[in-house]
Amino acid sequence: MFLLSQVPDHQVAGHEARDGKLGPLVDDLGCFYKPLQDDDRGSKELAFYTKFSSMPEITSHIRRFFPTFHGVQTLAASDGSGPRPHLVLQDVVFGRVNPSVVDIKIGSRTWYPQASEDYVNRCLKKDRETTSLLLGFRISGLKIYGGDRSGFWKPEKKVVQSFTLQDVRFVLRKFVSCNLETPDSVTDPDCSFASAVYGGTGGILSQLLELKEWFEDQTMFHFNSCSVLMVYEKESVLRGETSGAEVKLIDFAHVTEGDGVIDHNFLGGLCSLIKFISDIVNDTEKCWN
Amino acid sequence: MFLLSQVPDHQVAGHEARDGKLGPLVDDLGCFYKPLQDDDRGSKELAFYTKFSSMPEITSHIRRFFPTFHGVQTLAASDGSGPRPHLVLQDVVFGRVNPSVVDIKIGSRTWYPQASEDYVNRCLKKDRETTSLLLGFRISGLKIYGGDRSGFWKPEKKVVQSFTLQDVRFVLRKFVSCNLETPDSVTDPDCSFASAVYGGTGGILSQLLELKEWFEDQTMFHFNSCSVLMVYEKESVLRGETSGAEVKLIDFAHVTEGDGVIDHNFLGGLCSLIKFISDIVNDTEKCWN
Repeated sequence: MFLLSQVPDHQVAGHEARDGKLGPLVDDLGCFYKPLQDDDRGSKELAFYTKFSSMPEITSHIRRFFPTFHGVQTLAASDGSGPRPHLVLQDVVFGRVNPSVVDIKIGSRTWYPQASEDYVNRCLKKDRETTSLLLGFRISGLKIYGGDRSGFWKPEKKVVQSFTLQDVRFVLRKFVSCNLETPDSVTDPDCSFASAVYGGTGGILSQLLELKEWFEDQTMFHFNSCSVLMVYEKESVLRGETSGAEVKLIDFAHVTEGDGVIDHNFLGGLCSLIKFISDIVNDTEKCWN
Repeated sequence: MFLLSQVPDHQVAGHEARDGKLGPLVDDLGCFYKPLQDDDRGSKELAFYTKFSSMPEITSHIRRFFPTFHGVQTLAASDGSGPRPHLVLQDVVFGRVNPSVVDIKIGSRTWYPQASEDYVNRCLKKDRETTSLLLGFRISGLKIYGGDRSGFWKPEKKVVQSFTLQDVRFVLRKFVSCNLETPDSVTDPDCSFASAVYGGTGGILSQLLELKEWFEDQTMFHFNSCSVLMVYEKESVLRGETSGAEVKLIDFAHVTEGDGVIDHNFLGGLCSLIKFISDIVNDTEKCWN
């Protein structure tokens, strides 16, 4: 079958399919094609999606936080290496106009007991060098739409990797701010979209709280090294329409069995993120009242 | 001032003041004397108690989960080394008849960024060898009262340190069981006190949930390597009286400043413990209905 595949416009973290490198592709029907890596990460992510999508105990309420899985398809890899199997997933930013996106890797620990010593040591080092250990999460990538004139603010990978506690607080405020025409400035973000995007019924905070409730109880999976993706459309808010605020979990190459124990590492980090976001919502409401 | 000091009867973890060793003492007025260690642990724990006890923002609702602090007093150390300053704390088992006690060290990580590399490595090793990493907590010590005939079940330190997931589940069930006359047997615990001790208003589960709510919000302290102590009196339950179920936080030698971030490590582990206990309560209720 012929598929019109192209490099995703709104990817913010992970390997990118540019300059002859292997990375995900999208089509114009709303699918996201993630190449299966040669090591066991690909097969592990496929195993997760296969199992998860067939579990009747996962309600639609929770399932909506995960990209829909459409199976595996072989297509030409982006690095020109020829045909390669790809996971066919829902493109979570499909149809969105200038979406602002932030990718947050959850957990103060990205390694897990079953991993090799080498992997453990590399992860531990990175967790200590980034905000993971301190905050229980780290920002892995982001792009924030400023407006027609300024376009997107998308800091370099190296900049994102060196984010401190203060940077994270700044980015989470800037994500819902309007005064971004000079996107690299240190202007204090106005958080004028905080209630529209983070707050309210159906806002990001309420979605994160629903996820939290599930994580307090589910003991099926440990979501090691997974990310929470937060998306919304600024122009939509400016027009007085719904923000399209959405939370999705992505990246399941290191998911392990829960064996009857909750994922306390993910849950702790998620609660920390929730605290940051609810602080922003509360501060904004205070200013407006 | 003369004080009638003696070795505590119901200590389940930590250094014991026996055989000429340095350890805590109690008097018959309800005080617990914890010797200040020579390294910085003593001064750090004193600094925590001093600060915590003077903070007006800590409500009595939360304060009741901490031993009351009565200052520092110099008394003869239990190891015969002469006068030594001791923290004077509330003896949390004072006046209790045959209390059953379990000491649970919370957190999948007992180390913290500011610690020395040597300390980090020792803690990390122990966290991986015990259930800390897997469950987000480990049992540090326990004594369970079986009855007149069997007395207390108090496994050796080495046995406790080697507890697996299955052992932890077993102990948390056994803690609220009646069929303990042969305390070392593998008889399936009957959990007949589960609703009286863990469940109900004022039970251990509801106390843990109150603590959880506080940890979701408080960003003042990170309670590294702290324990939750759970206590109750079996004979009191058998007489149809209140179980005296109580949760206390203890051991603050490694508390650090929260700096505006929640203690996601403690919170994650606490949620994991809550899940274990609520499973026991729910299973028991199912059997009885």
